[in-house]
Amino acid sequence: MEKIINALVLSPEQKEAFLAAAPGVEQVFFRDSDITAADLEGATVLLGNPSVAAVREGGTSLRWMHTRSAGADQYMPEGVLPAGAVLSSSVGAYGISVSEHMFAMLMALMKRLPDYRDNQNAEIWKRTGTAKTLRGAKVLIGGAGDIGSSFALLCKAFGAETLGIRRNVNKPAPGIDSMHSMDELDDLLAECDVAALVFPRSPETDGLMSYERIKRMKPDAILINAGRGTAVDCEALARALSEGHLFGAALDVTDPEPLPAGHPLWKEKRALITPHVAGGNSLEITAVKIAEIALENLRLYLDGQPVKNRLK
Amino acid sequence: MEKIINALVLSPEQKEAFLAAAPGVEQVFFRDSDITAADLEGATVLLGNPSVAAVREGGTSLRWMHTRSAGADQYMPEGVLPAGAVLSSSVGAYGISVSEHMFAMLMALMKRLPDYRDNQNAEIWKRTGTAKTLRGAKVLIGGAGDIGSSFALLCKAFGAETLGIRRNVNKPAPGIDSMHSMDELDDLLAECDVAALVFPRSPETDGLMSYERIKRMKPDAILINAGRGTAVDCEALARALSEGHLFGAALDVTDPEPLPAGHPLWKEKRALITPHVAGGNSLEITAVKIAEIALENLRLYLDGQPVKNRLK
Repeated sequence: MEKIINALVLSPEQKEAFLAAAPGVEQVFFRDSDITAADLEGATVLLGNPSVAAVREGGTSLRWMHTRSAGADQYMPEGVLPAGAVLSSSVGAYGISVSEHMFAMLMALMKRLPDYRDNQNAEIWKRTGTAKTLRGAKVLIGGAGDIGSSFALLCKAFGAETLGIRRNVNKPAPGIDSMHSMDELDDLLAECDVAALVFPRSPETDGLMSYERIKRMKPDAILINAGRGTAVDCEALARALSEGHLFGAALDVTDPEPLPAGHPLWKEKRALITPHVAGGNSLEITAVKIAEIALENLRLYLDGQPVKNRLK
Repeated sequence: MEKIINALVLSPEQKEAFLAAAPGVEQVFFRDSDITAADLEGATVLLGNPSVAAVREGGTSLRWMHTRSAGADQYMPEGVLPAGAVLSSSVGAYGISVSEHMFAMLMALMKRLPDYRDNQNAEIWKRTGTAKTLRGAKVLIGGAGDIGSSFALLCKAFGAETLGIRRNVNKPAPGIDSMHSMDELDDLLAECDVAALVFPRSPETDGLMSYERIKRMKPDAILINAGRGTAVDCEALARALSEGHLFGAALDVTDPEPLPAGHPLWKEKRALITPHVAGGNSLEITAVKIAEIALENLRLYLDGQPVKNRLK
């Protein structure tokens, strides 16, 4: 017998659709933050992102877990889910939200809006320097999946050339003018005006942007990270910025996260930091897509077919 | 005999092109800010934006003045230029620069970046609220010329519907989905998610956005002004924002300008203010276009033909 724990954020109509997709199956609705280990006892299907501790302790009957997030690294380690359980995610739901947020941060840096905000707070009317444009700029996009591809399309609408890095260089992506492999990273960093990272977490990308790699970038280039905070060494970035390197850096994710008070990066005026909100900033279209992906996967699962976006 | 005072910002190559365009004619190069009334004595052609006082006092022989700015209202009043002198401007050179700056401000407000900047300065990692997207949004563009049209194209690339207001409603503009007349302003303000103003200065647009008109906008709409500061009553805007009206307002131009320390608008956190830099923020493409327009006009003038972008 299946038992579904559904912790997605759903409208009444969406809830009806999930109930209709699983007739005769027990389906209990929760909020993520409310779920305890006890709530998961006997559950075979879990839709949502409860705490890792709750899943590890209570999720011993789980056969399939599907996250509302795009990444699900916290549920990947041995022992969190029972052996053989399938793990899938809502990758694909966040392209619009994350890419727009990244683009907003990039444009803000290019037009020096953080400086002007600081001056506004001091009631100072003063030009702070020249602006930048994406026209003719080379934008390197690390991680050319759904989010990277959406971001590339926005950059192209502003006249940029886009270069992508992905594992499978033979798989093209909309908006990416040329696809490259990770081996070419050091050369590409030296020639690009913007490096925007949306890599999923992996051993290969942990600590990727070291002090040396940041210094390989052009002195007036812009670095953006909205994938996993671990892809950029934040101490090294603060040091490079304090030395005058880079035009600016925009981070929606950091390492550690939250970035603690007192971290040197907070004080760098050419950094722009947002608290991991690019994906979860509540655009209606994101919620709609999460529900669509999860509902399709629930139908596939109950039909005995392989689910999509499978990570494990 | 012609005598040219050239106060444009030019590269050595551009300077050569201006000299080559006027063989045998005296052409003296200045910086705008250096030009005194005495420097203008005997000059028949003035390219640049010296002070109004210098033009009024020294420019008595002028037959043609061409500004590097898009607007030239300060030189329009009777008595600034000699009777019969022609006045033209570099309208058309600023579309990319101003529209990108406006778009950067709009996206910054939609993604709450000014809030996050303030939190960054306080070393606080905290989500501040939901974001907005241009997908499906209605964007009203007041002034559908070069800048308005460029801005409209950017908004459309992000999925917005664009409505324009211009004097001649029968003249379409690239990027504008539907063109309207000023008579429809009050109705359009009530239905649009964004109102972006790039009107040139005129008696019709002075004080256009009164308290009443600002309050006609949707409570969570966004107001942008990058045309003339006088189009928005800045005291009224501060009052409306302080009452909780509007999602935000972005101003690159204000009234008065500079906005003085102590003005209530500085303190409104949902306002984002930049000090009239959208056009003059030194994008290389702007300088190239200004030189192109002025050079073409110089050739036309010396050839006895009507110059372009004529205002007077």
